[in-house]
Amino acid sequence: MNVTVHGRTQPCRTVAFDRANNTVLLIEQRLLPHEFKIVAAKNFRETANAITDMVVRGAGAIGATAAYGLAQGALAFHGHDLPKFRRHLKAVYQTLKTARPTAVDPVNAMNDVRAAMRAGRTVEEQQLLALAAAEEFANENVRHCEEIGRHGAKLIRNGMKILTHCNAGWLAFVDVGTATAPMYAAQAQGKKFHVFCDETRPRSQGATLTAWELAQQKISHQVIADNAAGHLMQHGEIDLVIVGSDRTLGRTGEVANKIGTYTKAVLAKRHGIPFYVAIPLSTIDWKLKSGFDIPIEERCESEVLGAWGALMNSKLKTQNSKLSYVRVANPTSGARNPGFDVTPPELITGIITPVGIFRPKELCGRRHELCLAD
Amino acid sequence: MNVTVHGRTQPCRTVAFDRANNTVLLIEQRLLPHEFKIVAAKNFRETANAITDMVVRGAGAIGATAAYGLAQGALAFHGHDLPKFRRHLKAVYQTLKTARPTAVDPVNAMNDVRAAMRAGRTVEEQQLLALAAAEEFANENVRHCEEIGRHGAKLIRNGMKILTHCNAGWLAFVDVGTATAPMYAAQAQGKKFHVFCDETRPRSQGATLTAWELAQQKISHQVIADNAAGHLMQHGEIDLVIVGSDRTLGRTGEVANKIGTYTKAVLAKRHGIPFYVAIPLSTIDWKLKSGFDIPIEERCESEVLGAWGALMNSKLKTQNSKLSYVRVANPTSGARNPGFDVTPPELITGIITPVGIFRPKELCGRRHELCLAD
Repeated sequence: MNVTVHGRTQPCRTVAFDRANNTVLLIEQRLLPHEFKIVAAKNFRETANAITDMVVRGAGAIGATAAYGLAQGALAFHGHDLPKFRRHLKAVYQTLKTARPTAVDPVNAMNDVRAAMRAGRTVEEQQLLALAAAEEFANENVRHCEEIGRHGAKLIRNGMKILTHCNAGWLAFVDVGTATAPMYAAQAQGKKFHVFCDETRPRSQGATLTAWELAQQKISHQVIADNAAGHLMQHGEIDLVIVGSDRTLGRTGEVANKIGTYTKAVLAKRHGIPFYVAIPLSTIDWKLKSGFDIPIEERCESEVLGAWGALMNSKLKTQNSKLSYVRVANPTSGARNPGFDVTPPELITGIITPVGIFRPKELCGRRHELCLAD
Repeated sequence: MNVTVHGRTQPCRTVAFDRANNTVLLIEQRLLPHEFKIVAAKNFRETANAITDMVVRGAGAIGATAAYGLAQGALAFHGHDLPKFRRHLKAVYQTLKTARPTAVDPVNAMNDVRAAMRAGRTVEEQQLLALAAAEEFANENVRHCEEIGRHGAKLIRNGMKILTHCNAGWLAFVDVGTATAPMYAAQAQGKKFHVFCDETRPRSQGATLTAWELAQQKISHQVIADNAAGHLMQHGEIDLVIVGSDRTLGRTGEVANKIGTYTKAVLAKRHGIPFYVAIPLSTIDWKLKSGFDIPIEERCESEVLGAWGALMNSKLKTQNSKLSYVRVANPTSGARNPGFDVTPPELITGIITPVGIFRPKELCGRRHELCLAD
């Protein structure tokens, strides 16, 4: 998508590769929304550190970063000794795999790259195949998001007010995003609409990342407190809800997503407002039989008890882009902080996938189709 | 209620009067929850400033502050000249009235005091009557809250988990509070329970004031993000919801309260969880015929776009109790910030008043009784 720096607008992916310098280029997401910066990871160790240190986050984005990191590591090898090369590649793989141990996307992405490399007979051939596979992994991620956008844009009519929760935007993927994809596609079709970004406490990804994305893309939007959506719905100010998902159960149509998603689905149902979930096929879980089996991460208390932001001076101007933490809550109180919740299928109007929009209960019957496309 | 300072626990009202020094004593609420301090307003001008500057907030609390301020002004008059005294008192009244021009409670409270003074024939008699009436106003506020507690405590059973939103606690009244009153009464009866305090963005009164109150009172509690209540209800972790109200329509049973209250009522209904609203009789509006006629204040954007808190050092220790503002949201984005919402009667299990608990639709038929008691 587009980024405007010093008045110049240019296209920019969340994750990209600079072939000439063998570096992975990443949007430094820890500085957003207060500062935009591209960091160049000059070798696979720096790329792994960028994953560990949350320079890059989001399933699709860290998958592509790891794929590029593996290719980067492969390309850095000098010589023609295949067994040596394989040992080197194993070390690169391990380093990138352990960068975020609980994430599955980096592993899946690197396995794709490794599988493609097997066709090469020499070190050079394998190096080129690694790079091509990493590029293909990233491009496929973008194509899938674009397909979500193509299907989802049909839901957006001129003048609509759309609610979204958290960030399922291009910063979480290689580009375009999932929940935001229909908005970007509708904008490209010349449609005018307005987006309400739920702040999404406690980590405020809606107020920070989604609002930043939409501002860069020049889409009309406003941030709202998570408490405000009910009132806006009551007053006919929301026509459509689109959110993303961390895990969607193929068997039941239940959707796990950022805490607060369930609440918005309950409110939308009460007000007869369509509620859509946009997902890449890789997040469909075909194993679990019930949403109650999805482990809900209890995150650290400090997220709820305070907030991160740019410190303002007495004239309410940003002092600098370094983030400061303020303790908001009573200092002697603790917090509960479930990170995700599960929305049942009866509250979901449709699941927007790269291969079409389905009712949540339909997913199961279309398993073959949905898996093939992945 | 109780406050513990330097390990010593002592009772403390939000608003009190020191007769010997003719000063109004107020909990400095702008420093809470990071520092506890009592400020002494030494004359009626300082008392008016305390209202203006939000040292004290909440309908009941500012009413009592104005009543005490009027008595304080009366007592500061030297001499026996009644006409002079009346002119002086008029100036005191005007100063306190304009301290927070849109609030009705200070005016109502001062009118009570003025009415009581009419029985006095001398300056001295009127001064004493003013003080007695101000004390009676404050004490009645406390008694009404205690009655709310007596009725509401019946709803609380051992082991319950209770959700509350915003702050309708003793800091908003002279003492005890409304939504918190049943909790304090149940605690006095030896019942054990746990309270979840909704953070209540954007001003976070739940995380700051309610959590502070409950901590002082040694009631088991945790702060949660406003997004988390739906998930907790889904998992059977909330048994009862009690909130306050800024305005309750006597004719319809609709309840206006802090933004987000409606959302919690919708969630509670879906999960079959009882949803109660605790109110003093003075907040019942007998005029309006529809909740849609309640003006909903659109507050300033900066509340949603950032947060106030105590700045922490690198070891996450509070640097000082002065509050700092951090900009959380994308700097080029704006916000919508409705301050209140309206909950319809069908979502409300009962209204807890000083004279009993009623279904919202019952209020209208009991108008005579509810007005008499006020």
